[in-house]
Amino acid sequence: MTLMRRARKGITPEIEAVAEVERMPAERLRRLVAAGRVVIPFNQVHSPDLCGIGEGLAVKINANIGTSADHHDMKEELEKATVAVKYGADTIMDLSTGGDIDEMRRRIVKEVRVPIGTVPIYQAALKAAKKGSILDMTEDDMFSGVELHAKDGIDFMTVHCGVTKASVSSVKSSSRITDIVSRGGTFLASWILHRDEENPFYSNYDYLVEMAQEYDFALSLGDGLRPGCISDATDTPQLQELLIIGGLVKRAREKGVQTIVEGPGHVPLNQIEANVRVEKTVCEGAPFYVLGPIVTDIAPGYDHITGAIGGALAAFHGADYLCYVTPAEHLSLPTVEDVKEGVVASKIAAHVADIARGINVEQDDRMARARKALDWEKMLSIAVDPEKAKLYRQRRKPKDDDVCSMCGEVCAIKIASDYVR
Amino acid sequence: MTLMRRARKGITPEIEAVAEVERMPAERLRRLVAAGRVVIPFNQVHSPDLCGIGEGLAVKINANIGTSADHHDMKEELEKATVAVKYGADTIMDLSTGGDIDEMRRRIVKEVRVPIGTVPIYQAALKAAKKGSILDMTEDDMFSGVELHAKDGIDFMTVHCGVTKASVSSVKSSSRITDIVSRGGTFLASWILHRDEENPFYSNYDYLVEMAQEYDFALSLGDGLRPGCISDATDTPQLQELLIIGGLVKRAREKGVQTIVEGPGHVPLNQIEANVRVEKTVCEGAPFYVLGPIVTDIAPGYDHITGAIGGALAAFHGADYLCYVTPAEHLSLPTVEDVKEGVVASKIAAHVADIARGINVEQDDRMARARKALDWEKMLSIAVDPEKAKLYRQRRKPKDDDVCSMCGEVCAIKIASDYVR
Repeated sequence: MTLMRRARKGITPEIEAVAEVERMPAERLRRLVAAGRVVIPFNQVHSPDLCGIGEGLAVKINANIGTSADHHDMKEELEKATVAVKYGADTIMDLSTGGDIDEMRRRIVKEVRVPIGTVPIYQAALKAAKKGSILDMTEDDMFSGVELHAKDGIDFMTVHCGVTKASVSSVKSSSRITDIVSRGGTFLASWILHRDEENPFYSNYDYLVEMAQEYDFALSLGDGLRPGCISDATDTPQLQELLIIGGLVKRAREKGVQTIVEGPGHVPLNQIEANVRVEKTVCEGAPFYVLGPIVTDIAPGYDHITGAIGGALAAFHGADYLCYVTPAEHLSLPTVEDVKEGVVASKIAAHVADIARGINVEQDDRMARARKALDWEKMLSIAVDPEKAKLYRQRRKPKDDDVCSMCGEVCAIKIASDYVR
Repeated sequence: MTLMRRARKGITPEIEAVAEVERMPAERLRRLVAAGRVVIPFNQVHSPDLCGIGEGLAVKINANIGTSADHHDMKEELEKATVAVKYGADTIMDLSTGGDIDEMRRRIVKEVRVPIGTVPIYQAALKAAKKGSILDMTEDDMFSGVELHAKDGIDFMTVHCGVTKASVSSVKSSSRITDIVSRGGTFLASWILHRDEENPFYSNYDYLVEMAQEYDFALSLGDGLRPGCISDATDTPQLQELLIIGGLVKRAREKGVQTIVEGPGHVPLNQIEANVRVEKTVCEGAPFYVLGPIVTDIAPGYDHITGAIGGALAAFHGADYLCYVTPAEHLSLPTVEDVKEGVVASKIAAHVADIARGINVEQDDRMARARKALDWEKMLSIAVDPEKAKLYRQRRKPKDDDVCSMCGEVCAIKIASDYVR
């Protein structure tokens, strides 16, 4: 029986464990899981660390890793996963498209303890491309890809079920600048248009749900038609796909299958709240997993920052799960260092939203007290990245050990302690 | 006659020039300047590049540079100013507290074309400290410091006029964790408490305003009691000081003196909008100059990111002017590289707020079109930091020149161009 079905009968060990971490009454969490408003991705083959994503919980973050055809070093990708988890990634997605993809996935599942996600359509498309063209992908390629990943222990999978004849035709008649920028979305849209056939993940959605039921992985309903620039944001094709996804969430829930809903992408600051509200109404509170969002197009090299701005605001308004963005986004496959920078930025965004909603505020108070006491050891230990903070402090040693080289003897905190209190 | 008084009579050359840059009708801008809702800092001795700050204009950013007792290399500080202006700083503040402060200020005025700000109380306090204690500062030290900076051509000055007996006593009776963290605020609060005298910049505010009138520099009314941590944010002492500042804004306007109002500091995401709204009502639309704000205390080493999150949201809600934060904040005096990172992050925040309010959206559209066309040369040229973007792209060269090493042959944009349109 799936976790969701078990949750409908009573508190499960998974719910008990997550409730403790989140400091939420287990019965309240049970109701949220049973209703599909909180998802705990958990494939028994992998049996990952437990992680709750959704309403009322601390915001979670995901880090993407994975090879490409141009660069496929399995050891480096595993190192990226390790570094990502070290700096706070709650889940890892393996988006490999180069080298030995099966082996990569299996090693990640074996070596990484957090929940692992994948996008099985990549592999199906690449397999077809090798034989000739992605347009030759068969329905069997698609579904057997999903089953293979399920058997390998993948905890959640992105499937672009909302890319349909109707939503793709909406893209064609739109005035979008960037058409489609999701890899999975492009594969499926091209396939649908070229063959004039419906997306099998949509027309045979029940089969997909049965598979998810059997292996008990979570479905992450992918936004294959998410806009690729600020000008295209929150447009008709995006919303058309979301409405379709809303219907699919309900059908999965009826079968006890957990669903997450993926969202944009590129969103200007003034449209972020609307994006969250609409997802929460249309998908009846399903956890919202946003990709960034990045809030301007002009900052390649700094998209970890544009993503942190968008992610913080989205999470503050109710997004539950942030996909990180690295400084390499739009430019190249990230390095290990890029992954670290992306994770830290995303973790900051999640935390910022948490404390604005009254969750996990103790850390900030402890830092404030350490600062007031000029207790540098404690300050460094509380910091999101103690090594970097230490480096910055030591780089320019102040004469007095208790202050820093910014103000030196005219340290406001020191003077205030002497004269104000 | 001051710029503000001239604006009340008709369109001045300064207003004409700023109106053109901002693409705003000159008459509308004239009314805003005359009312004090837009400030154009402009000391004739310096005669800087014209820069409008306030209602309806693109958001502006400031970069702080300056020596400290522990580290005072004049050449390095000048290099910081140059780099800051290169990456988009609209103004520079020289906050030097070490080495030859007078010479530093004069060289900055001479070599930097954007408006220059200072905080004269620093120098007055250091002068007194050298003789014994900052508590020995005389009223004459304070005012003659301001006059010296005015004569040197400083375009705007931070003066902490709202740190008064009443507002400081409000700090003492508060349950703040971090008491006072503003350097100028601490100097004055200590002085007031120790001597049981009123802040001369408050009790003799008319004299300060007359000086500003004579030399026509803008007053930046400093928030000496701004909270120093998330827990203290938007508290009574902060608001008490703001109410005092609101009254002072009106008195300056009556004399034709331009005023900017400084704001926090440390503000959680859920209090940013309130901070902007309150400043705009209490100070009758005076330009709001926020320091960051940073939105969590736990990220030293990454406060350019926490500041960009807070700054973007503050500016979206109406803050007009963002003081950058560098990664070195809370840790050490920044290096040239830190200054660059701080400026870029702050510039991104300002731009993100601009496009969310419909200003300067063309750049993003041009980037989106370049991405759709896979025109890498154009993408790099539009980027906020073309050198960094180029470095990232070249680091991992893709086999095909038109894509990038992230997706390689499975580039969504390339496939969509082939099959979707």
